[in-house]
Amino acid sequence: MEAPYIVIVSTGSEITAGRSLDTNSGWMANQLFELGWKVKKFIALPDDPDLILSELQVLKELTETRPVLVLMTGGLGPTEDDYTLETVLKLSGKKSYSVEKAKIRLQRIYESRGKQYSDILPTVLRQTHVPEDCKTLDNTVGIAVGFVEPIGPNSYLVCMPGVPSEMKEMFKRRLVPELKRIYPRENLVQRTKWLWNIGESLYQKDFVEALREELFKNVDWGVTANRGYIKCIFQSTDSKQLDTIIQRLEAQYPKIISDDVFEFVHEYLLVEKLTIAVGESCTGGLLGKKLTDSPGSSSYFVGGFLTYSNQMKESLLGVPRDTLNNFGAVSKETAEAMAKGISEKTKADYCVSITGIAGPDGGTELKPVGTVWIGLKTPDGSIQTHSYLFPGNREGIRENASNTALFLLYQSLKQRNV
Amino acid sequence: MEAPYIVIVSTGSEITAGRSLDTNSGWMANQLFELGWKVKKFIALPDDPDLILSELQVLKELTETRPVLVLMTGGLGPTEDDYTLETVLKLSGKKSYSVEKAKIRLQRIYESRGKQYSDILPTVLRQTHVPEDCKTLDNTVGIAVGFVEPIGPNSYLVCMPGVPSEMKEMFKRRLVPELKRIYPRENLVQRTKWLWNIGESLYQKDFVEALREELFKNVDWGVTANRGYIKCIFQSTDSKQLDTIIQRLEAQYPKIISDDVFEFVHEYLLVEKLTIAVGESCTGGLLGKKLTDSPGSSSYFVGGFLTYSNQMKESLLGVPRDTLNNFGAVSKETAEAMAKGISEKTKADYCVSITGIAGPDGGTELKPVGTVWIGLKTPDGSIQTHSYLFPGNREGIRENASNTALFLLYQSLKQRNV
Repeated sequence: MEAPYIVIVSTGSEITAGRSLDTNSGWMANQLFELGWKVKKFIALPDDPDLILSELQVLKELTETRPVLVLMTGGLGPTEDDYTLETVLKLSGKKSYSVEKAKIRLQRIYESRGKQYSDILPTVLRQTHVPEDCKTLDNTVGIAVGFVEPIGPNSYLVCMPGVPSEMKEMFKRRLVPELKRIYPRENLVQRTKWLWNIGESLYQKDFVEALREELFKNVDWGVTANRGYIKCIFQSTDSKQLDTIIQRLEAQYPKIISDDVFEFVHEYLLVEKLTIAVGESCTGGLLGKKLTDSPGSSSYFVGGFLTYSNQMKESLLGVPRDTLNNFGAVSKETAEAMAKGISEKTKADYCVSITGIAGPDGGTELKPVGTVWIGLKTPDGSIQTHSYLFPGNREGIRENASNTALFLLYQSLKQRNV
Repeated sequence: MEAPYIVIVSTGSEITAGRSLDTNSGWMANQLFELGWKVKKFIALPDDPDLILSELQVLKELTETRPVLVLMTGGLGPTEDDYTLETVLKLSGKKSYSVEKAKIRLQRIYESRGKQYSDILPTVLRQTHVPEDCKTLDNTVGIAVGFVEPIGPNSYLVCMPGVPSEMKEMFKRRLVPELKRIYPRENLVQRTKWLWNIGESLYQKDFVEALREELFKNVDWGVTANRGYIKCIFQSTDSKQLDTIIQRLEAQYPKIISDDVFEFVHEYLLVEKLTIAVGESCTGGLLGKKLTDSPGSSSYFVGGFLTYSNQMKESLLGVPRDTLNNFGAVSKETAEAMAKGISEKTKADYCVSITGIAGPDGGTELKPVGTVWIGLKTPDGSIQTHSYLFPGNREGIRENASNTALFLLYQSLKQRNV
């Protein structure tokens, strides 16, 4: 079957008024790319039922010439300006019904808060409604049920909540299996590798362009830029060809290549029953936050120190005043002393320290904004230190620093594995 | 004159592939909103000249029934996949010419880099080109010239670079005066308040619906949901009416209303030279991260403790083992002891502790997932504690908890202010 013409529609006046950034569309486009599909268009509309309906009518007309897949988010909430269901019913001429499972779930939520079924407002109950004769998509995070409405030959309108956590869960668990069923693809294989502290244009020139003739026939590639790393994605029906590409990539970038660092670190520490603790200066808690993003992290994450001021570096982590005076808070020596202090206070197997200048102020000629030292104490007691000059603004530098610290940890764990 | 039907078009395959977030459209919509204009639609398209042309043709047809303003960014750069000029020339049937001033500027830039005019590649020179008979928009940051192309009665297509710094400067300095000249308007005023731990539907029913007749004539309102709070936005040309609404809102929700908590806490601690320290369990560093998001936070943020394990609560913050055993890690008593410990170790004026169950595991009947205790030690030495049952998944609970901790701090600082 022909690949569908994919359009992503976001509804919400907060988006078209510029009060909220639409992050859903990009996220979905990225996920779809990993399934082998490219998006033709994003559309964002205010909460205006006439505008939404006329846009959907235009998209429905498109289905006369090709398969169309419309992914729409937003407008399924409990407020007056949530128009998605109403609009889809107008578009299809259908009626709606309340999904029993969702109604029971809503009731349980109300009861757990000491309220009764009769307390549920009609607009809240409306969230359990979907059009007749369509595939429903369960919401396991929030209330509003999603659905897949047929709009033409091999064409569908998918409606999902605009709350990112609800949409993402629904997309991955409920929608993707459905899409794979509707639009079967040849067995497309995908490989992903991460490269650290390299620009996407340089990678593109040195690797993809250089090897295009030799290796990239029948292979689709993509790259997504993140803070500190780029994700290199390769897709093909020929898995051997992909293996060859990955081998070449590993040979060309042996020192900066990795798999999914977050996943690996989580799994490895969990399985090997190792512990970790942190000491953060410029990242102010961001590394700790990242290390505790996944459920179960309490098995390995012991704790940490946010030593933002020099005084705290001294009193909490025992960094000698002489070290701070002679070398400065952002130095190899301080990163080392911090790692040592974390280890002494927590006895964790791995201890990571970060100290740097996130800016926009505080930079000097010798230590410009973006300078970051990272220390890593390993179970054998040795402490390695690394320095970086990260690009970007304050937020970028902080993200870069904490991601890179996790990469260093990854490398150390990998080596242990060998 | 009738307000124009405004559409914002962003071009760039990096956007529709989900590799880059389109922040330009929201920024422009926000600027336009402050000028009193609402945007009807955002569109993002890949770098595909056929798709772009057909979209512009559809928009041009709209001008037959009303004034249309299309703001398009991207595709004016020097690379192969920059199609904007070419597409607009096809749309209008016009030719282009090189803007003399821009050509001279480009030449000077090349000379300052020790290069000659003849070194300039044709694709780079193309950036100085605009269609005949249109208003040009100077670029004072980069090279590519913007332009305002008439596409119908009182209707225009504005083309600007996609690089945010270039677009923003061009928008504010060149385009806004032009728009004000073309579409004169009255002045619109905006007010925003935050309400904590209340659903948007309840707020809408109890406040907006209840007072619609009395207060909301000539007032536009909007609400955006965030983790822990909703933002209530009001707009009108009548600023006294807005003042009345804000007074009523404050009277109705005296305990849960706030201004921008992040901004207030930052400014207040900075100006009053107060210090703060944190102790985090379930949020794992997220509160510290939020407190250090803004430049200058080193003046007030002393540091903190990530006491994820009970052992660390004991050894780093001196929480008595009896307290942990008798009341549990997630309890009023532990939150209190943590706040006390932070204070003793850091001597900060304000000390915030968070301990809770972020899930998905670890909940019990008495303390379900989402249970969070927050402790706050104020400069007078007293410690207040608050308990919550936050909804959502792990990420939501952690965001909720750290935002709410900042709200409690806000309230305490506000009281001090009185």
